[in-house]
Amino acid sequence: MGRKRFSDMNCGIGQALEAFGDWWTLLIVRDAFFGVRRFGDFERNLGIAKNILSARLQHLVDHEIFERVDVGSEGERFEYRLTEKGEALLPVLTALREWSDEWVFGRGNEPVLVHDRRTGRKVPKLRVADADGRPLSRRELRMTPGPGASRDTIRRLQPRPR
Amino acid sequence: MGRKRFSDMNCGIGQALEAFGDWWTLLIVRDAFFGVRRFGDFERNLGIAKNILSARLQHLVDHEIFERVDVGSEGERFEYRLTEKGEALLPVLTALREWSDEWVFGRGNEPVLVHDRRTGRKVPKLRVADADGRPLSRRELRMTPGPGASRDTIRRLQPRPR
Repeated sequence: MGRKRFSDMNCGIGQALEAFGDWWTLLIVRDAFFGVRRFGDFERNLGIAKNILSARLQHLVDHEIFERVDVGSEGERFEYRLTEKGEALLPVLTALREWSDEWVFGRGNEPVLVHDRRTGRKVPKLRVADADGRPLSRRELRMTPGPGASRDTIRRLQPRPR
Repeated sequence: MGRKRFSDMNCGIGQALEAFGDWWTLLIVRDAFFGVRRFGDFERNLGIAKNILSARLQHLVDHEIFERVDVGSEGERFEYRLTEKGEALLPVLTALREWSDEWVFGRGNEPVLVHDRRTGRKVPKLRVADADGRPLSRRELRMTPGPGASRDTIRRLQPRPR
């Protein structure tokens, strides 16, 4: 009721989330990547209820993706800034955007273009590739339990009949 | 109530989602990347209620991430297989996993390792980089409205004072 639908958004990341479920938080992070820092700007950009935004921002601060910075008394007192952990989400947001650009919007209908500020060139697509840059598909990958694997993960990664 | 928490999962993607919100669907896709195809195997792996799993799988079929394939009458009749659009989520899942490996679990605590099946070498991390492979940070990117930008996207991408 009154809930905004991701499918109505003109945004690759929103579209990707719509394809999986319903979800606000990455869109707040996306706006932070666009340069938004103030509560009121997030609110305006996202058309999101104050109490929900407030809870989501707190969640992101709790997870050290944002830090809440006191910037004094001019206008809004606090800014929400991406931490290093938050900035490290760039490949996640990029992968979501590129997937949507290709599979939801289609080429020629991208809502956002990303260029290298220095050279003006288009940033190449993220690809899972080997050390020589050769693209790898899922079937060329071997997934094995790592040092932090639980019993459940070990079971899940056992080879299964195809 | 009885809801499984992502924070309890031994999985990078689950941890990433926990850091943003609450969300099942990508975990179904993750399991498909691990080779799962049958309803009962998804159910067992995820510890998810039948009706929720059923709705999520249908959602993924509706979005053409999975196709439902009739494989005859032995055991379960249907398989859920990743489509090309679904396989294209590899960079999304990889980016989420790598972020969690670095920022949630930490090095040496990765639950899952991914190697190139052919060479046995570790698959290099996804990086947003220029055409020469030089890594790019958010501040080195210029985001501009694309051909499919809405008025809202154009407004959102306008330069703002820093």
